[in-house]
Amino acid sequence: GFAKVDHHRTIRNGFPEVVFCQGKTEEQIVQILMHLAKYDNNILATRATPHDFARVKEAIPEADYSELARVITIIKKPIPMRGKVLILSAGTADLPVAEEAAMTADIMGCQVERLYDVGVAGIHRLLDNTDRFKDAQVLIVVAGMEGALASVVGGLTDKPIIAVPTSIGYGASFGGLAALLAMLNSCAAGIGVVNIDNGFGAGVLANSIIKAIHGAKYDE
Amino acid sequence: GFAKVDHHRTIRNGFPEVVFCQGKTEEQIVQILMHLAKYDNNILATRATPHDFARVKEAIPEADYSELARVITIIKKPIPMRGKVLILSAGTADLPVAEEAAMTADIMGCQVERLYDVGVAGIHRLLDNTDRFKDAQVLIVVAGMEGALASVVGGLTDKPIIAVPTSIGYGASFGGLAALLAMLNSCAAGIGVVNIDNGFGAGVLANSIIKAIHGAKYDE
Amino acid sequence: GFAKVDHHRTIRNGFPEVVFCQGKTEEQIVQILMHLAKYDNNILATRATPHDFARVKEAIPEADYSELARVITIIKKPIPMRGKVLILSAGTADLPVAEEAAMTADIMGCQVERLYDVGVAGIHRLLDNTDRFKDAQVLIVVAGMEGALASVVGGLTDKPIIAVPTSIGYGASFGGLAALLAMLNSCAAGIGVVNIDNGFGAGVLANSIIKAIHGAKYDE
Amino acid sequence: GFAKVDHHRTIRNGFPEVVFCQGKTEEQIVQILMHLAKYDNNILATRATPHDFARVKEAIPEADYSELARVITIIKKPIPMRGKVLILSAGTADLPVAEEAAMTADIMGCQVERLYDVGVAGIHRLLDNTDRFKDAQVLIVVAGMEGALASVVGGLTDKPIIAVPTSIGYGASFGGLAALLAMLNSCAAGIGVVNIDNGFGAGVLANSIIKAIHGAKYDE
Amino acid sequence: GFAKVDHHRTIRNGFPEVVFCQGKTEEQIVQILMHLAKYDNNILATRATPHDFARVKEAIPEADYSELARVITIIKKPIPMRGKVLILSAGTADLPVAEEAAMTADIMGCQVERLYDVGVAGIHRLLDNTDRFKDAQVLIVVAGMEGALASVVGGLTDKPIIAVPTSIGYGASFGGLAALLAMLNSCAAGIGVVNIDNGFGAGVLANSIIKAIHGAKYDE
Amino acid sequence: GFAKVDHHRTIRNGFPEVVFCQGKTEEQIVQILMHLAKYDNNILATRATPHDFARVKEAIPEADYSELARVITIIKKPIPMRGKVLILSAGTADLPVAEEAAMTADIMGCQVERLYDVGVAGIHRLLDNTDRFKDAQVLIVVAGMEGALASVVGGLTDKPIIAVPTSIGYGASFGGLAALLAMLNSCAAGIGVVNIDNGFGAGVLANSIIKAIHGAKYDE
Amino acid sequence: GFAKVDHHRTIRNGFPEVVFCQGKTEEQIVQILMHLAKYDNNILATRATPHDFARVKEAIPEADYSELARVITIIKKPIPMRGKVLILSAGTADLPVAEEAAMTADIMGCQVERLYDVGVAGIHRLLDNTDRFKDAQVLIVVAGMEGALASVVGGLTDKPIIAVPTSIGYGASFGGLAALLAMLNSCAAGIGVVNIDNGFGAGVLANSIIKAIHGAKYDE
Amino acid sequence: GFAKVDHHRTIRNGFPEVVFCQGKTEEQIVQILMHLAKYDNNILATRATPHDFARVKEAIPEADYSELARVITIIKKPIPMRGKVLILSAGTADLPVAEEAAMTADIMGCQVERLYDVGVAGIHRLLDNTDRFKDAQVLIVVAGMEGALASVVGGLTDKPIIAVPTSIGYGASFGGLAALLAMLNSCAAGIGVVNIDNGFGAGVLANSIIKAIHGAKYDE
Ligand SMILES: Nc1ncnc2c1ncn2[C@@H]1O[C@H](COP(=O)(O)O)[C@@H](O)[C@H]1O
Ligand SMILES: Nc1ncnc2c1ncn2[C@@H]1O[C@H](COP(=O)(O)O)[C@@H](O)[C@H]1O
Ligand SMILES: Nc1ncnc2c1ncn2[C@@H]1O[C@H](COP(=O)(O)O)[C@@H](O)[C@H]1O
Ligand SMILES: Nc1ncnc2c1ncn2[C@@H]1O[C@H](COP(=O)(O)O)[C@@H](O)[C@H]1O
Ligand SMILES: [Mg+2]
Ligand SMILES: [Mg+2]
Ligand SMILES: [Mg+2]
Ligand SMILES: [Mg+2]
Ligand SMILES: [Mg+2]
Ligand SMILES: [Mg+2]
Ligand SMILES: [Mg+2]
Ligand SMILES: [Mg+2]
Repeated sequence: GFAKVDHHRTIRNGFPEVVFCQGKTEEQIVQILMHLAKYDNNILATRATPHDFARVKEAIPEADYSELARVITIIKKPIPMRGKVLILSAGTADLPVAEEAAMTADIMGCQVERLYDVGVAGIHRLLDNTDRFKDAQVLIVVAGMEGALASVVGGLTDKPIIAVPTSIGYGASFGGLAALLAMLNSCAAGIGVVNIDNGFGAGVLANSIIKAIHGAKYDE
Repeated sequence: GFAKVDHHRTIRNGFPEVVFCQGKTEEQIVQILMHLAKYDNNILATRATPHDFARVKEAIPEADYSELARVITIIKKPIPMRGKVLILSAGTADLPVAEEAAMTADIMGCQVERLYDVGVAGIHRLLDNTDRFKDAQVLIVVAGMEGALASVVGGLTDKPIIAVPTSIGYGASFGGLAALLAMLNSCAAGIGVVNIDNGFGAGVLANSIIKAIHGAKYDE
Repeated sequence: GFAKVDHHRTIRNGFPEVVFCQGKTEEQIVQILMHLAKYDNNILATRATPHDFARVKEAIPEADYSELARVITIIKKPIPMRGKVLILSAGTADLPVAEEAAMTADIMGCQVERLYDVGVAGIHRLLDNTDRFKDAQVLIVVAGMEGALASVVGGLTDKPIIAVPTSIGYGASFGGLAALLAMLNSCAAGIGVVNIDNGFGAGVLANSIIKAIHGAKYDE
Repeated sequence: GFAKVDHHRTIRNGFPEVVFCQGKTEEQIVQILMHLAKYDNNILATRATPHDFARVKEAIPEADYSELARVITIIKKPIPMRGKVLILSAGTADLPVAEEAAMTADIMGCQVERLYDVGVAGIHRLLDNTDRFKDAQVLIVVAGMEGALASVVGGLTDKPIIAVPTSIGYGASFGGLAALLAMLNSCAAGIGVVNIDNGFGAGVLANSIIKAIHGAKYDE
Repeated sequence: GFAKVDHHRTIRNGFPEVVFCQGKTEEQIVQILMHLAKYDNNILATRATPHDFARVKEAIPEADYSELARVITIIKKPIPMRGKVLILSAGTADLPVAEEAAMTADIMGCQVERLYDVGVAGIHRLLDNTDRFKDAQVLIVVAGMEGALASVVGGLTDKPIIAVPTSIGYGASFGGLAALLAMLNSCAAGIGVVNIDNGFGAGVLANSIIKAIHGAKYDE
Repeated sequence: GFAKVDHHRTIRNGFPEVVFCQGKTEEQIVQILMHLAKYDNNILATRATPHDFARVKEAIPEADYSELARVITIIKKPIPMRGKVLILSAGTADLPVAEEAAMTADIMGCQVERLYDVGVAGIHRLLDNTDRFKDAQVLIVVAGMEGALASVVGGLTDKPIIAVPTSIGYGASFGGLAALLAMLNSCAAGIGVVNIDNGFGAGVLANSIIKAIHGAKYDE
Repeated sequence: GFAKVDHHRTIRNGFPEVVFCQGKTEEQIVQILMHLAKYDNNILATRATPHDFARVKEAIPEADYSELARVITIIKKPIPMRGKVLILSAGTADLPVAEEAAMTADIMGCQVERLYDVGVAGIHRLLDNTDRFKDAQVLIVVAGMEGALASVVGGLTDKPIIAVPTSIGYGASFGGLAALLAMLNSCAAGIGVVNIDNGFGAGVLANSIIKAIHGAKYDE
Repeated sequence: GFAKVDHHRTIRNGFPEVVFCQGKTEEQIVQILMHLAKYDNNILATRATPHDFARVKEAIPEADYSELARVITIIKKPIPMRGKVLILSAGTADLPVAEEAAMTADIMGCQVERLYDVGVAGIHRLLDNTDRFKDAQVLIVVAGMEGALASVVGGLTDKPIIAVPTSIGYGASFGGLAALLAMLNSCAAGIGVVNIDNGFGAGVLANSIIKAIHGAKYDE
């Protein structure tokens, strides 16, 4: 095989096995997933195209696919749910990244709520829904273009916020740089930023916080 | 003298004479202003330090100074007021730029209203004051750091908006680049952006719009 | 549907419904437009390819298309015209952006005049036509490469100017960055800049100024 | 006064009052702090120089100062401690930022542990101390230059990690950009990054996570 | 022919003939290789696609191909082996660059050892194999994303280290810039960095060091 | 001495001796100039402060200084004049760079004409003086901010044009980058650009063209 | 037609008509060229693909094509030759840009000499041919990657040098930025730089210098 | 003390103790050096100002200083010399970095030769001295501005080359970026690049190669 699959990490982390499909051939993806599917772990394959999935589905019939999230999941054992993550997104074009975050947090055992299409150019769509912040333990804010949503949300809550800049935009968005810089410079202090388009990383960080909360609870 | 002073432009534009003090010695500033003060035009000198002003005041007793705006004004003839410009700023550190815009619009004959310290991290400070948008014919939004205020204001009004990014911030604000990119990529369409810290330019553009409005009125 | 269409905004703004086609499949575009076409609003779909339009035309026969502007329009109610916007462009390659601005201003009710191909390398083409500035209430300047046209026009008029940098150029134009920076640093004070290639945004801003002028007029 | 002090936020957030001293005169700092000190809230003033403090101390004798953290604190009411934050730093030059994070988390009620000078060029200094990760609920990793410490720590724990790039370095560190990019691109998924040198923001985010953990506990 | 092939250099350097296939047509590659194959030198053609090779193989049956390294080799005379280069890579996606380095060093007469998939997010994979550093005379570290592996290896050995940043990553990796900057700013002093994805250059530099070592030996 | 002074070059090129004072102590400048002044060559010392000159004047009484150009000259032998260079500059702040170019071309034997303060925001200042282009054999265009003057001049003449971007401006001028990019992307083809603020380089290039013209003449 | 063809310029400049084919459809190119071919001027169409040419050839049989230069020429009247331009290039991959410069200078009436493949990594290829500098009146240096050739040539001659950075390279060449910056910062003073890959611009500038030389001659 | 001094590394590496003085107060430097001077190791303190040294000298009379290299050395035990490093520099302004490299290599036991002021604009200064390459086992090339020297040297020898870009230059050198990019993109394959101005790092890498050579020798 091309890669030493790191079962060790999976066990240590309670992580699903994760495969990053971008830059891999359908052939390679199928091979890796078939290898992983021999074991008992759940599997998450991100950045998978519909073509990737078609080939995977032939080989592994229990595989599922979210076209929006570009994510293949193979569920081998039940996921005990705990915690609540609220995912907000600014525009419809940001949905693939928001859903990548959602699917990632979900397969790791976080209950995911969605509040989509609440970009700041129509601030009342957001303000009319701030009651939905209440149940959440962590918020993920996904936004491209000028990325202002993170700052506004940051001003409305003291809960931990994870910001994901997206590459949505053109011209002087420079592939997501504008949103990234905006989020790093947020006047609402205490926002943790991940890489451009990195819904997966946001989901992992959200889960680590949820784990800290619920690990703490159970420990008592 | 070092510069052909362009009286022609001043007359054509109904402009005050404008001097950019940054990079000039006190000596040079005094000399230029004394020369200009011989004529009947109002004078605006931007980016002037308190030391600059002290020297100017000795030579031209009727000169005035706004330390916050870093602006010297010499009023030689009354300014007929028309139109209304509302200037919003995000944080207290943005005030010098906001006031440069205010002083510029003012000396050109715009009535200036101020709504300061309404950064998006405390969105209700802004939302509680949106009634103040009503009278305004043009809005100038001044913000540093992530520059998100422009987008939020843009979503709350259809009036012309001029956005001024400021160099306030550190690290990944890269001297105002973060705010500049945010404003250029605003999801609220139709915001006109000027250079980083260019309160002067924003005031000039606001005035040109006011002039278009009131010129139009008077023409009828 | 994938997006909460914001009819509220449309009504509040006197805006047409606007769809940004880039990054959407033909399927998605058709679906969105068919949904919107049920209502009485005019519709503007920007960045549409000829293929996009072919599919839309089948579903919505009254749809129109400008290949140059890459814009689909669906006119459901008459547009009352007021105001005058003059659009200048530097080179023929800038026309798609200039026309995007033109179509946007037009569908919002601005009378649009065009003065194209007046790049500064042949300055007399521009100078021979400055009489056309007279009637205009707002000017939009569209230019790629070094974007110098905005500064020259800025020196020739005191009317409000909106500058649109385009991505036309290669090498050190860095996708329109050269023109963008030039326009932001214009020595002709008071130019409002929008994002690279953002003809749409320029049209919206022009319309907001026209609205301020004519709203003002009618209010009296 | 120059700024509407936002008591509302302080109360809503359980936050201390926070003042950013950089770019303010000693005069201004003293005035703001004297105003705030009339109330019952704790106060944190970051980026304060020894000179700033000298002036503050005269006016407010109970003020304390950490020269390393460049932080003034004025404690008006006891801080109930809960949670545990472990702060790691790479080099001695990163200490001011690490201590800014520490002082921030501390004044918000987090118990802070320190593991300093464990840069990856001497990896065993870190590996010999991984047992100290056990008690921590959140880790803050502070590093300049190439910022690699965040990735290594990320690989050693599943706990939430906040990464703070610092501007330590020269040449191609470009004022902290190298460390910032490294942290955003960490191969250890799920690291939340704050702005360059933003120890304060890291402290705030750590506290929001601790609050989520302990709020959760107390709610049960 | 299109290029003066520089046999002189080849002889002077003990180099194989080297061809950079990227940007050349299959036609051109075949022609150049057929010309070179008339002489007695070994030949290395980098950045060759499988299609390139198919065409070359028809014309030059003794040509070999490594798909992973994207390298064609034509061995015309035996290569006397001396020295030992250990090549480390962080992730599986970095393998093409690592293998380009390996094939380059190999054809120049270096014995190549590989330690792949030892990225710092699982630091023990590296630490468990540090005994493999012993025999090596030069180390090449290949890593994309945040490029942290170079610093960690640099802290574990005093042997000469060559670092190759790769373009693996997305978003704020900016095509390998993040890894490049990280390696240039390594806190482990004395790492020599080559261009992004330049496995070839790393192999050449490794060989020049090996040559210095063994030349030195033989000279005595 | 710190530097092998390259008399060879001076003789070969008909160059004066040239010293770049920036970054050197007054001590070092005096020493270098005293050494050079022993020979018969003319001497040009650029980027010299008034303090530098004061010290030089004491040691070398025949030294001259242009404060505007920041240039010290020591004339040891007559300069035969040939050719004509016209130097245009946009604003008064660009004069130091324009004068550095002028002094450089002058000491090399070019007759220098000046057309200053003809920035494009007042295009008629330029257009009223185009008859002055007639006699010139080379034009040097010096401009900061958006650097548009080069393009306009380029459209008005077919003579060789050398463009010098200056660092005049602030914010998004990024130290002269805006003007540099504008000049490189000029829609008026055939403009040769030198480094930001490099008046010296422009003077040298102008002289090399003049030399080609007059060398050619004399050869006949 | 899409563009006001500027015959005026052509006549004024003694220029051929020039068409930039990149970004135009074959259809558009054919139409423009057929229109231009009605007149008596020579025509140069740059950045033309073989497909473009195939279509043009059908419509205009006397059209010629250089595949290497990507240039179509249509010669309608004889070109009187004067002057001598020497074009140097570093690597074979730079040839298309070098040939674009050559074809441009040639059609404008410059005699073009070529010295190709003399990159600095094999400095003797250049040094063995410096006698070829003698006849040249202008030198054009074309180089990608690190662009060092311009500096070396600049040190070997006092003749006017035009430097063309190319986008050849990968990774940290950033599309020609490395070569561009190198040429702008050349330690050999007096090099005029044009845009990345702008062989055309270099040819135009070379011709303007040749014209100045020979215009001068003939004037006598 | 502020820092855990890492004696372990010193012993493991045969390294002197190294202190980086930049950003440290004279007080701190003296304290660290006095602490280190208690032990038997040699000490190297880089980036030390004359003022730093004055204070150190009072406390540690055996300390030595090179003003050019900005380096303090304290020699406590004899350094056995082996190997030969040749350091080349382009201009006199690069000397501080070149000397930092020299002093670093020297204190680690490398015999250092210098070939300074051989920038490529006067290529014969370099070519006349290539015989000095013969004895060297490693070459360090130090150059600012366009950094072309590295490529030329790389073409003249097969020995290992370490390139150090310096921040010498202005304008578009962007603090050494131009030289850095040039060196990374060198057409002479196999050059190892260190950070801008990092003479220290170059010295360390040179020493590690020398050590590999001579360790190898002695092992036999
Ligand atoms: N969408 C994603 N963005 C960033 N990293 C990812 C993503 N999906 C997976 N990864 C990471 O990539 C690793 C798998 O990479 P690979 O072995 O190349 O498939 C996982 O362990 C994750 O850490
Ligand atoms: N704060 C400012 N920012 C940008 N431009 C300014 C500012 N103040 C004045 N200017 C411009 O600078 C010109 C005067 O420049 P100067 O002649 O150098 O004093 C004015 O005509 C304005 O166009
Ligand atoms: N993968 C590579 N990366 C960088 N340079 C390379 C690579 N492969 C070959 N080269 C260089 O490219 C030259 C051959 O270029 P060419 O003549 O265009 O095939 C060789 O002499 C090498 O110096
Ligand atoms: N001039 C230099 N450039 C880069 N790194 C240096 C330099 N001098 C010393 N160092 C590094 O800085 C470390 C000492 O840092 P410090 O403990 O802050 O004095 C040394 O171990 C070196 O690795
Ligand atoms: Mg908050
Ligand atoms: Mg709006
Ligand atoms: Mg104007
Ligand atoms: Mg982890
Ligand atoms: Mg090491
Ligand atoms: Mg011209
Ligand atoms: Mg020369
Ligand atoms: Mg070599």
